[in-house]
Amino acid sequence: MIIVLKKNAKKKEIMTVTNKIKALGYKPHISVGKDITIIGMIGDCAEKYRNAFEAMDVVEHVSEIQKPYKLASREFRKENTVIKINKSIEIGNKKVYIMAGPCSIESKELLFETAKMVKDAGATILRGGAFKPRSSPYAFQGLGENGLKYMKMASAKLYMPTVSEAMAVEQVGLLSKYCDIVQIGARNIQNYELLKAVGKQQKPVLLKRGMATTIKELLLSAEYILSQGNYNVMLCERGIRTFEDSTRFTMDLSAVPVLKKLTHLPIILDPSHGIGIREHVGAMAKACVAVGADGLIIEVHPRPEEALSDGQQSLLPDQFKILMKELDLVARAVGREVF
Amino acid sequence: MIIVLKKNAKKKEIMTVTNKIKALGYKPHISVGKDITIIGMIGDCAEKYRNAFEAMDVVEHVSEIQKPYKLASREFRKENTVIKINKSIEIGNKKVYIMAGPCSIESKELLFETAKMVKDAGATILRGGAFKPRSSPYAFQGLGENGLKYMKMASAKLYMPTVSEAMAVEQVGLLSKYCDIVQIGARNIQNYELLKAVGKQQKPVLLKRGMATTIKELLLSAEYILSQGNYNVMLCERGIRTFEDSTRFTMDLSAVPVLKKLTHLPIILDPSHGIGIREHVGAMAKACVAVGADGLIIEVHPRPEEALSDGQQSLLPDQFKILMKELDLVARAVGREVF
Amino acid sequence: MIIVLKKNAKKKEIMTVTNKIKALGYKPHISVGKDITIIGMIGDCAEKYRNAFEAMDVVEHVSEIQKPYKLASREFRKENTVIKINKSIEIGNKKVYIMAGPCSIESKELLFETAKMVKDAGATILRGGAFKPRSSPYAFQGLGENGLKYMKMASAKLYMPTVSEAMAVEQVGLLSKYCDIVQIGARNIQNYELLKAVGKQQKPVLLKRGMATTIKELLLSAEYILSQGNYNVMLCERGIRTFEDSTRFTMDLSAVPVLKKLTHLPIILDPSHGIGIREHVGAMAKACVAVGADGLIIEVHPRPEEALSDGQQSLLPDQFKILMKELDLVARAVGREVF
Amino acid sequence: MIIVLKKNAKKKEIMTVTNKIKALGYKPHISVGKDITIIGMIGDCAEKYRNAFEAMDVVEHVSEIQKPYKLASREFRKENTVIKINKSIEIGNKKVYIMAGPCSIESKELLFETAKMVKDAGATILRGGAFKPRSSPYAFQGLGENGLKYMKMASAKLYMPTVSEAMAVEQVGLLSKYCDIVQIGARNIQNYELLKAVGKQQKPVLLKRGMATTIKELLLSAEYILSQGNYNVMLCERGIRTFEDSTRFTMDLSAVPVLKKLTHLPIILDPSHGIGIREHVGAMAKACVAVGADGLIIEVHPRPEEALSDGQQSLLPDQFKILMKELDLVARAVGREVF
Repeated sequence: MIIVLKKNAKKKEIMTVTNKIKALGYKPHISVGKDITIIGMIGDCAEKYRNAFEAMDVVEHVSEIQKPYKLASREFRKENTVIKINKSIEIGNKKVYIMAGPCSIESKELLFETAKMVKDAGATILRGGAFKPRSSPYAFQGLGENGLKYMKMASAKLYMPTVSEAMAVEQVGLLSKYCDIVQIGARNIQNYELLKAVGKQQKPVLLKRGMATTIKELLLSAEYILSQGNYNVMLCERGIRTFEDSTRFTMDLSAVPVLKKLTHLPIILDPSHGIGIREHVGAMAKACVAVGADGLIIEVHPRPEEALSDGQQSLLPDQFKILMKELDLVARAVGREVF
Repeated sequence: MIIVLKKNAKKKEIMTVTNKIKALGYKPHISVGKDITIIGMIGDCAEKYRNAFEAMDVVEHVSEIQKPYKLASREFRKENTVIKINKSIEIGNKKVYIMAGPCSIESKELLFETAKMVKDAGATILRGGAFKPRSSPYAFQGLGENGLKYMKMASAKLYMPTVSEAMAVEQVGLLSKYCDIVQIGARNIQNYELLKAVGKQQKPVLLKRGMATTIKELLLSAEYILSQGNYNVMLCERGIRTFEDSTRFTMDLSAVPVLKKLTHLPIILDPSHGIGIREHVGAMAKACVAVGADGLIIEVHPRPEEALSDGQQSLLPDQFKILMKELDLVARAVGREVF
Repeated sequence: MIIVLKKNAKKKEIMTVTNKIKALGYKPHISVGKDITIIGMIGDCAEKYRNAFEAMDVVEHVSEIQKPYKLASREFRKENTVIKINKSIEIGNKKVYIMAGPCSIESKELLFETAKMVKDAGATILRGGAFKPRSSPYAFQGLGENGLKYMKMASAKLYMPTVSEAMAVEQVGLLSKYCDIVQIGARNIQNYELLKAVGKQQKPVLLKRGMATTIKELLLSAEYILSQGNYNVMLCERGIRTFEDSTRFTMDLSAVPVLKKLTHLPIILDPSHGIGIREHVGAMAKACVAVGADGLIIEVHPRPEEALSDGQQSLLPDQFKILMKELDLVARAVGREVF
Repeated sequence: MIIVLKKNAKKKEIMTVTNKIKALGYKPHISVGKDITIIGMIGDCAEKYRNAFEAMDVVEHVSEIQKPYKLASREFRKENTVIKINKSIEIGNKKVYIMAGPCSIESKELLFETAKMVKDAGATILRGGAFKPRSSPYAFQGLGENGLKYMKMASAKLYMPTVSEAMAVEQVGLLSKYCDIVQIGARNIQNYELLKAVGKQQKPVLLKRGMATTIKELLLSAEYILSQGNYNVMLCERGIRTFEDSTRFTMDLSAVPVLKKLTHLPIILDPSHGIGIREHVGAMAKACVAVGADGLIIEVHPRPEEALSDGQQSLLPDQFKILMKELDLVARAVGREVF
């Protein structure tokens, strides 16, 4: 951590700072310029005292040098984390895994119909929401536990692991019981009690970046989960909010190489929410594979105009089938594979 | 809701749309231009079918005309909501109420010391966090229930109502028991289970806008609370996230006149988080009063350099005392009053 | 254009609006709901009267239905524009063209050295700035006309067309004389006099999107050039400004499929500025090809630590050489080719 | 400038950096932590070498400590700059100056009519655009030199100084001849040739912040003007672009106290463009005065529904008259005055 003092700080003020650093058990590194003094405070966890220094009147500003997260960092673990879902699915290895299915589980029939289609097209994991975070209290809120039961049945029938979202601490147990991967949605990225709750259970977690979450904050939210003992966390970029309004969100694909350098955790991308327009999902999905995703999560619906949520961004089964083949070609071009 | 069809839509496709509108119990209003057809679907709650139309291939895009929230809207209630906290405090009336106190309740002594100071300076409501949403799992997380007990004691001693944050459903009961106003923080603006939980209890709610929440979404989140029966909701703007990095957030003061037109709920502003820099909080606070706030929430700490959170934005008691007088002058200039 | 009136508009007020529409030569399409009236005004260029209606007190808001640009739109020209630079380079065809070179032309030697390297690696167009838009007046401002002369020489020697930036109307003549493609930088995206000036000369134009330019505004800026008679315009996405600060900008790859639908103009992508970090340029470049770019513009410098601008994002020649091969693989995976 | 090296940098690599610092004439200040090395390079203009260090492979990142602008900084000039427009108008003193008038000069009659009204209401400077930067090439582009002649006449008749925009280098002479203050619009904030041109003439300059310009960049753009010898520059915040779409822009009022600390230049605010909605301009204008503006620029039009640009945000003369009185009250509450 670098502490830059206000111009022409007095000797006594400088000493207040250095004494504080020493009191905390660190060694201050002082550099004095013509009228600027900067003080380095380097060492384990120095960054956690940032606030205390920022609050001092003589301090102009503080720059972090070390990362505020640990378990999620590449320094902590050099090799990529590979998350074993079942015998054949290990997220983070050479394969790019495609998670697909309807936005919401609307009925058992619809779920089974869609699951069969995406499985036939080559998807390896089934997605579907039972608890739906809707902006409006008057919109369809999901089937709840019944939806999860249908997921479990579909999973058993098709031998396909499943992913579904937990929106609240009290739902975590259900998700953990019925599904193979527990999703934390973008709106709950800083719902810390929920993060701790999924950190305490065993199932792998798919953690979605919020619409205004920085990469650093995303890793800190992952750290909440890891710090509870669950190291099987996948990070998911699904679009951030910007001034551009011709797409639902702006997908930040730059996040992939940046994250790959900072963390050992697998990265999943969600082009369906990222762009939010059915006819453009395919182009974005190809970019997602090219940039280095370890997996993709894609919404598919056999009759989007009847969907109870997100119909406008759901692919038709035929579109999905074609896309899968295209994704495999792109994956192979970057040394990976979908099939 | 206006449904704009793709160029050169065929008669049959147009009929699919109009039939769907009729099936839902509405009357379609068709306008045909040279090559564009637009269809109006106007009436109660038409907007809730937006997705279904957006998902149709013939539809180019859909514009909402009516508001997707009801109870929170000016149409539902013309006069301003006034929230009675106690005999002398009615938020939403002519007075601008100042809520002040430390960011976190760090100890009983600190809380009492700060509470006394802000009360003496003219603040009417005591703020302080017992459950703290911290980006890092390694940062101070608050004193929990003990903190709330100290709040209750301070409240009783100084006859000063209190506001504190609930971060999770299971904390709502405690907040409701010990405090007079339950705060929902920016990070939980779309934590719908939490919104429903505070909607079911009786205490007034201070709902903070998220860093990337639109005004429409803020009102929809308020609607979640109102729809559970609790109509005493205050909306709080506390800064949104933009590209500008010289301040902690960018405070969106435009939101005040816009919200005042759309809703009957009182508006509170949080200049401490909004700008995040102690020496600039005062200037922003004055702008907040001038733009029409019904109340302000301000962080004060007697020794910010020892604060366990947000020290850099906490005012010193002397600064706060002077500011209070300045705020009263501005309030009177716009037909209101602080004292 | 859809004109939504304020709630409970009076008959007389509605007539003021419809009369105005008729006076402008259009036919009003009125839809009356329970308490909302909307009026359609559809027809050629109706959108250009938008302001006049927005300014009326009875009008709640106006939604555009038709596009405010014409020559740049797919409706105006269905097939893709292909820009012929020389016998073998036709931007917009199956090939993905790579433009590469140093950020600034720092010296004749450096330019020739870099040009040779990028040509050998397979780049087809040479980039290099002679007039440099620098945030600081104290930073290196470019070699000016001398730089352009070096470009011309390098071009002749290596038989490689060139692209360089014009920052002011008075530079357009020089650019047009010495280079094959005239670039308009992000900072000048709404410098309308400059847009008109490049619209009046003959050389193709590479138009870079600004940091806060919407897709609609980008197309309107292109329209300024097209409306002067120059139809050879390439659009270039190079990153927009968002809250995320771990990269220089956030590259909006969603813009590619969206633009491909709206316009017939070729799309170039600039991953060097987009991400701004050398080690991550390659990953983004691959995503750029996968998402459907017609060309890429990439900064290369043999000794970036000596570069007078943008050294931190310039690839080393060896990195570039490897990347070119990888880009060709990705291009072939999406039905295109680099070599 | 602080140079943070990559983890575990080797001795030899560290020496490359320190040698470079010495070669540039500075003294390196090295701080070595357990696995991190940081090197301070402090002194006049060190920041201008930032790029060279960022481009080195061993460098993790570089933080600026000193400001990259000089003439615009408080360090350069401690007391506020006061710009004398005429005998009675000195922008930057105790008074808050109101600049008002139509968006565009549409006709001589309209200009005179509006000028008279705003003068009567107490405005001290007349605004009006003769060259209009319009997003669409098909929108009204302004009356050009004729418009400026009308401004000159109105100015002479009413003894009211004027402000109008220059969009291109070749217009600067005209503006300088006919008007008292030359405005540089938001879209030209980084049109460096234009900045230099207004820096070379004598009239004061009103420099508007762009929609995505950081405060640092705004000051660097001002520096371009100052470095040419013209020290009479006013900075103008007029709204930045964010995700919020219920207002035209989001006005960044935080910029006022931040700028007041960093620079000695006067700050003008533009609530008309900032919020873009007539009925809300007044509330924002009051906030602008409260936060510490030295002046405001406000659009007024006697018949906004006939305006050729920005009618939706122009105040009616009666609204303006009332607002002026309200602004004076707020100004007095913060120790200033409008009348």
